[in-house]
Amino acid sequence: MNDVRFDWDRSARTGVAEAVLADGKSTEQIASVLRQALDRRRPVLITRLSADQFEALRDHCGDSLDYDPLSRTAILGAPEPVRELRSVGVVCAGTSDLPVALEAQRSLTYLGIETALYADVGVAGLWRLMSVADELRRHAVLIAVAGMEGSLFSVLSGLVPGVVIAVPTSIGYGVSSGGRVALESALSSCSPGVVCVNIDNGFGAAAAARKMLLSAHRGAGAQPDSRPRGDPVGTRPER
Amino acid sequence: MNDVRFDWDRSARTGVAEAVLADGKSTEQIASVLRQALDRRRPVLITRLSADQFEALRDHCGDSLDYDPLSRTAILGAPEPVRELRSVGVVCAGTSDLPVALEAQRSLTYLGIETALYADVGVAGLWRLMSVADELRRHAVLIAVAGMEGSLFSVLSGLVPGVVIAVPTSIGYGVSSGGRVALESALSSCSPGVVCVNIDNGFGAAAAARKMLLSAHRGAGAQPDSRPRGDPVGTRPER
Amino acid sequence: MNDVRFDWDRSARTGVAEAVLADGKSTEQIASVLRQALDRRRPVLITRLSADQFEALRDHCGDSLDYDPLSRTAILGAPEPVRELRSVGVVCAGTSDLPVALEAQRSLTYLGIETALYADVGVAGLWRLMSVADELRRHAVLIAVAGMEGSLFSVLSGLVPGVVIAVPTSIGYGVSSGGRVALESALSSCSPGVVCVNIDNGFGAAAAARKMLLSAHRGAGAQPDSRPRGDPVGTRPER
Amino acid sequence: MNDVRFDWDRSARTGVAEAVLADGKSTEQIASVLRQALDRRRPVLITRLSADQFEALRDHCGDSLDYDPLSRTAILGAPEPVRELRSVGVVCAGTSDLPVALEAQRSLTYLGIETALYADVGVAGLWRLMSVADELRRHAVLIAVAGMEGSLFSVLSGLVPGVVIAVPTSIGYGVSSGGRVALESALSSCSPGVVCVNIDNGFGAAAAARKMLLSAHRGAGAQPDSRPRGDPVGTRPER
Amino acid sequence: MNDVRFDWDRSARTGVAEAVLADGKSTEQIASVLRQALDRRRPVLITRLSADQFEALRDHCGDSLDYDPLSRTAILGAPEPVRELRSVGVVCAGTSDLPVALEAQRSLTYLGIETALYADVGVAGLWRLMSVADELRRHAVLIAVAGMEGSLFSVLSGLVPGVVIAVPTSIGYGVSSGGRVALESALSSCSPGVVCVNIDNGFGAAAAARKMLLSAHRGAGAQPDSRPRGDPVGTRPER
Amino acid sequence: MNDVRFDWDRSARTGVAEAVLADGKSTEQIASVLRQALDRRRPVLITRLSADQFEALRDHCGDSLDYDPLSRTAILGAPEPVRELRSVGVVCAGTSDLPVALEAQRSLTYLGIETALYADVGVAGLWRLMSVADELRRHAVLIAVAGMEGSLFSVLSGLVPGVVIAVPTSIGYGVSSGGRVALESALSSCSPGVVCVNIDNGFGAAAAARKMLLSAHRGAGAQPDSRPRGDPVGTRPER
Amino acid sequence: MNDVRFDWDRSARTGVAEAVLADGKSTEQIASVLRQALDRRRPVLITRLSADQFEALRDHCGDSLDYDPLSRTAILGAPEPVRELRSVGVVCAGTSDLPVALEAQRSLTYLGIETALYADVGVAGLWRLMSVADELRRHAVLIAVAGMEGSLFSVLSGLVPGVVIAVPTSIGYGVSSGGRVALESALSSCSPGVVCVNIDNGFGAAAAARKMLLSAHRGAGAQPDSRPRGDPVGTRPER
Amino acid sequence: MNDVRFDWDRSARTGVAEAVLADGKSTEQIASVLRQALDRRRPVLITRLSADQFEALRDHCGDSLDYDPLSRTAILGAPEPVRELRSVGVVCAGTSDLPVALEAQRSLTYLGIETALYADVGVAGLWRLMSVADELRRHAVLIAVAGMEGSLFSVLSGLVPGVVIAVPTSIGYGVSSGGRVALESALSSCSPGVVCVNIDNGFGAAAAARKMLLSAHRGAGAQPDSRPRGDPVGTRPER
Repeated sequence: MNDVRFDWDRSARTGVAEAVLADGKSTEQIASVLRQALDRRRPVLITRLSADQFEALRDHCGDSLDYDPLSRTAILGAPEPVRELRSVGVVCAGTSDLPVALEAQRSLTYLGIETALYADVGVAGLWRLMSVADELRRHAVLIAVAGMEGSLFSVLSGLVPGVVIAVPTSIGYGVSSGGRVALESALSSCSPGVVCVNIDNGFGAAAAARKMLLSAHRGAGAQPDSRPRGDPVGTRPER
Repeated sequence: MNDVRFDWDRSARTGVAEAVLADGKSTEQIASVLRQALDRRRPVLITRLSADQFEALRDHCGDSLDYDPLSRTAILGAPEPVRELRSVGVVCAGTSDLPVALEAQRSLTYLGIETALYADVGVAGLWRLMSVADELRRHAVLIAVAGMEGSLFSVLSGLVPGVVIAVPTSIGYGVSSGGRVALESALSSCSPGVVCVNIDNGFGAAAAARKMLLSAHRGAGAQPDSRPRGDPVGTRPER
Repeated sequence: MNDVRFDWDRSARTGVAEAVLADGKSTEQIASVLRQALDRRRPVLITRLSADQFEALRDHCGDSLDYDPLSRTAILGAPEPVRELRSVGVVCAGTSDLPVALEAQRSLTYLGIETALYADVGVAGLWRLMSVADELRRHAVLIAVAGMEGSLFSVLSGLVPGVVIAVPTSIGYGVSSGGRVALESALSSCSPGVVCVNIDNGFGAAAAARKMLLSAHRGAGAQPDSRPRGDPVGTRPER
Repeated sequence: MNDVRFDWDRSARTGVAEAVLADGKSTEQIASVLRQALDRRRPVLITRLSADQFEALRDHCGDSLDYDPLSRTAILGAPEPVRELRSVGVVCAGTSDLPVALEAQRSLTYLGIETALYADVGVAGLWRLMSVADELRRHAVLIAVAGMEGSLFSVLSGLVPGVVIAVPTSIGYGVSSGGRVALESALSSCSPGVVCVNIDNGFGAAAAARKMLLSAHRGAGAQPDSRPRGDPVGTRPER
Repeated sequence: MNDVRFDWDRSARTGVAEAVLADGKSTEQIASVLRQALDRRRPVLITRLSADQFEALRDHCGDSLDYDPLSRTAILGAPEPVRELRSVGVVCAGTSDLPVALEAQRSLTYLGIETALYADVGVAGLWRLMSVADELRRHAVLIAVAGMEGSLFSVLSGLVPGVVIAVPTSIGYGVSSGGRVALESALSSCSPGVVCVNIDNGFGAAAAARKMLLSAHRGAGAQPDSRPRGDPVGTRPER
Repeated sequence: MNDVRFDWDRSARTGVAEAVLADGKSTEQIASVLRQALDRRRPVLITRLSADQFEALRDHCGDSLDYDPLSRTAILGAPEPVRELRSVGVVCAGTSDLPVALEAQRSLTYLGIETALYADVGVAGLWRLMSVADELRRHAVLIAVAGMEGSLFSVLSGLVPGVVIAVPTSIGYGVSSGGRVALESALSSCSPGVVCVNIDNGFGAAAAARKMLLSAHRGAGAQPDSRPRGDPVGTRPER
Repeated sequence: MNDVRFDWDRSARTGVAEAVLADGKSTEQIASVLRQALDRRRPVLITRLSADQFEALRDHCGDSLDYDPLSRTAILGAPEPVRELRSVGVVCAGTSDLPVALEAQRSLTYLGIETALYADVGVAGLWRLMSVADELRRHAVLIAVAGMEGSLFSVLSGLVPGVVIAVPTSIGYGVSSGGRVALESALSSCSPGVVCVNIDNGFGAAAAARKMLLSAHRGAGAQPDSRPRGDPVGTRPER
Repeated sequence: MNDVRFDWDRSARTGVAEAVLADGKSTEQIASVLRQALDRRRPVLITRLSADQFEALRDHCGDSLDYDPLSRTAILGAPEPVRELRSVGVVCAGTSDLPVALEAQRSLTYLGIETALYADVGVAGLWRLMSVADELRRHAVLIAVAGMEGSLFSVLSGLVPGVVIAVPTSIGYGVSSGGRVALESALSSCSPGVVCVNIDNGFGAAAAARKMLLSAHRGAGAQPDSRPRGDPVGTRPER
């Protein structure tokens, strides 16, 4: 197979650049995108990149990839923060949900947005969530990450004025194995204003958050931010 | 078909008498049990009795049935409260969950146990639950009734020392239609100490609550309470 | 049962007032909320109100309810538009999806937000969507309503910079009966930036849209808009 | 990531201390909780701890962990039995269900409660259950552990006065693979008084059993037992 | 549409004649089969025939149909018992399962086989089943009919030497609504020798029972019984 | 754990001895049963025994186990054929279904019944089934083994007078992965007289076949065959 | 709502005109399409039109609709057959599947294609299918309509050279209720060359058949047949 | 086990030769088919052949197998193209769907049909599909391969006159894991003329495409192409 046809214009068209979902792709296919990115001096985000896949990629692109094993994300290039955008709160129910919360947080960083992480605030010990409630109320957008029964989504949304983007995780066992219960809990929330993305989709939540903040930042009818946000590390010696 | 073979000894054997689930039974079948109850001077609880079924039964047994249309329960005979047992708290998330909460409450009354009802305390407005938290902490057993995403179960269980018996309801639409999400939310609860019964099974929760309270009341190894708890109204003039 | 305990402070706390889901509630329960609203001079939105329920309510509250049979929504009181907020685009795939799209549109009107409706733009005839693409790109938030296989969500999101809130509908038959396929299609979208609410949940999408627009309108850390947005018709003669 | 935020007050609040579900957590995350426990001189229960995870933990905390490979549980510290509480019967249908039954048994031991185990009493050979029926009737609470079709739950509950907490197991193949059939069998039981926890959730059943026994032990309105129940081994040389 | 093409040779080929499943068929289609049966002087069994359908058929075929409203079966013609075959035991768990048990019993009668019905022998009161255990052990084939959690199948099969044909019923609510739990309980039975047919399929169980008994009756390699078993009532005046 | 409590009387009670399902059991647990069998001079059948498990068992019981890796069955002891019983036809749709067909065949051999295997007779090439149709018609009982869409069950049952016991297999991919489609195809068969066991349950089908043949062999009311059918190899030097 | 936006150019673009699925649409919405069709002198096919809906439409468009109550289809205008296209065989398993088979047949007629119907050829009596096998082999395209377990699809496809378009029907009960088993049976077919459409989707099968025949008829690269195929009855007085 | 009984006449009967699905078969079973093919000088296609299985086969048949690791297909013998047939377009949504697209493409090559591959044309970047729309319109048959939400099927079918055979892939995560969403999206397509095969079934789509093209090529009533299409490599030294 020849080169992967990447949607390099998506950022200009929709405000969020295409990311590479490594799961299910060969090393050669991922490397093909990285080569194109280096040629075009564009940053790239890779999600679901296993440690083995990362090691194999290293032979292709050296040390230019910033890899985080817990969230399994890799970033090529150093995006610059978009100063005008407000920060996003990432709220994480349990310790086992952290990898997905970190995927969201790393994706937001890549998209130029600052974040605050609130970890271990599951509703079984409500005092943990209550102790940060005032801080949570300051965020225009909150990304809530929870597995098992996903009660965090409803409780959080009933406490704050910001939009809650629910990211159900596949954490759980028995009936909640795979994340279905947390997902359907988010969709059934008795608290209006909760929206939902796919199970474990931290990047998707980050992308939606960026779209919300961009639209808040822009005036009516403005075009999306299409300027490249940073350049690949190691490809700008002349700078 | 000849008469229904009813398990009249179940109360002596297990501590909870058999109840009649009217749904799916013919009028003649239900009337057969009522006739036997009147003959034996035993009280009977009927659940899921539609208004039409109740009207049809009236021709068979006159005014001796105490029928409540909202919970669709009917009681034959006036059971006396078991004084020594502690009261049970029935906690109901939303207005639409009330019929199931009332089935639990009426069943407890029939089983000789006092109850307190806490309605409209869904977690979308957490203040409503918090405002009764001190009262809830006084109950050894709490029956929690909720549909949709069932977040009430986890939040409540994290706040109180009592056992929480979750009764998911079939209230909801889309993914939560039929009660599956609330059920699986209860089973997946991040808060240990939640136990669960079938969707809309208010009577089952009441039966389990009675077993818990009886075991608390009795000494180790004692036999269950097998005395009849009340007699049918209108059938004891000679007493 | 005594009066329903309504969460009258939700608007002040979260930016979106509680609405009444009529499905599964008795006339008396709905009327109880309406009485409280009239007493407090607060507007109320009722969703999933059948024509029969509406007729029954009329005896309680006369002509003060503005009822729309296609979307099955009723509004008590005349909310005033929040001028500063941008309009929301409501995009509807097929003729059978219209009731849900109208629930979203009526909810937005109630929440003080202007809307534009784009109907019959399903992807089987892509030219219909393309012919309004420029207009769609002007909205910061788009509510997309589609049943069957829900391809509209991915295609739309790939064309515009605004956030797409997907509302899957229960329209369909065979495997797509009930709306599961459209829902999971939205969640699986290959186009990042799509967020999702429950099947047929037009009000939920509107509530989320309002939260997004409010947060765009407010500065960082600002409190949510808690002023009552309109008063019940016929209850303000003294004004 | 910095330290895990553990809910150390849960025991005081709800009567059952938080346990650590090792599945899905990194060695470092589990070790973080153990370090905190040693610092606070509090016992800790870890469930679903694989042999590999246990070996890795050993480097962090030496021999202080009491590990059982069949139930995959580890206990830090030697809890003392709560003398006043009655013993719990653990009833196990088949040989393959033993690991889950042992998780329940070890959890009860950790929670200070004595147990009696009845193994290999599946209903295909009813004489095995009948031969211990008199002993089973003496327990106020019975934890029943069964996979496949879970008939044990209904049969047992019809024989005894005690509450039956059903723990469906993931044992089975074909339609019963994963434990769904046993779970739904428990929920559908024709025998009232059965309550249910999630598939394979031996700890959850033990936690609920402790709550039931504590409530039986306490007077009405009493606070839960919040005293630490034992100290970590190797941290109390001065005692 | 012209006449239905009925498989009149099926009895000769397989030992069991084709029956007419009335559900989903028009009156005209059912009447077409009845006309052919009268012409050929063959008996016919109709299952799932509603009272309304039966009334409509009366205009076509007068009083020749023997209709039973509880089992919703109708028989045209009076089949003669096959004397050599042993009787089949039909075991029914609950009162609500009776219609399906009666469909099996009426089908067996039509197929020339005697039956004994054991009703209300659900396992919640095990004594009821035990009290007839000796009788049950005498049947070579037992048809067990149960809904909800279907524990009857495993318990019965562990008690008797005969084959148990499980007929799960759609009786139940919540998770057991529709009969899935009872079906999967039968398939997962821990007691070998249970075989299963579709939910509510009393006729299918009867057909299988006849095949088993015929094969027992015949010598090895014998051909199936292909003689017509009875003639339509009202069509044999010459006899 | 002490010794497994095996149901050694099941054969006398029900006509089919308990078998050991090795999947999910430890080597020690299986060896415990084998030791008891050797002590009692009873044969034992083990199903789902992996090659690794078999190797581990060898250290405990030497060469006395007759192991077949394709069907993953092991037999301890040499059962003698029950001469009077007729043979069973085992019909296998595809090459990949063979392991399950062989489990059925080996189980029948263990239960003392002769078999004939008809392999590769899937309905996509109907001529293969037709070419053996006359032979198939001679069997009183047929065990049909098929995965994917399971059409074999209906076609076979429409061709022969014998009972068809359907054994769906987990062979397939996509929608038929795991065997659900084949199972439900068997249950929905348009051809009456098909009965069904769990997915991949070759032993269950053999057990049911034995019960059918035994009942055919015995007179009415006779007790099941309870004589031991063969003795363990190596434990009968005195014979 | 203003007029429905119909995709009048679909026939020119894809070879098959848009049809109106009446289910879920209001009378006014359907009438809107009919008015446009009469204005444009274009034929229209309506599917899933209930008798009540048809009666209501009559007031709008008089007798110009050709309605068939069994298939619930209505045709406006008299399409002329496309002479060059070969006929399609419609094969129907059972009497209850006829409505869907007729929807396919009427749709083909509307699309200008001749059909032959083969009814009551389910595989339980294989001789019925075999007796028409030679005729079936003559069709280039076969539409197979079956519910329950859908064995017809695999058997038919193994007998003929033509493509088999499987239309699973919702006919069945228990596990096959709703058509899932027939659908998945078609998808899992062991016989390659079967393709599938949605449950009960007779029109979809007809549309695909037309596309196949058109492509056979045209040379490579030719444009689809876009000429209007007939005019509405009653709108061409001038002709 | 003796040799596999292969359906060598299927090509003559149905137009498409049987292929070997390697998944679930032993090396010996596959080698048995290859030996028969070499004996009969017939080509064979093997699908789902893992690299390990291929290595094991090499010992049996040397270098005569043409293996492609990405599509996991192996071809024995060099089939010659059927010149008269038109080419098929294979349209692939994402990079991860390529293995399935290549299985379809290799199968078509084996069946003597030329193909054109259109990769990376998912609808999130609609311009990619639009840029090849004119080419796509030239194909009489299009095989569309997509995972996740499968929007490609509806969009493509609305653009072109050719039949679209949808091949859903198991690519995706969360709700779309395993391919169910893509499958049901294809079946629910709002665009008529889409037909569907099982998840990941590239060969099935190719087989159906060949049947469509053959029927287009033949006159009415013609017999299928039964000539062997090529001979095994290494078995024709005399040529």
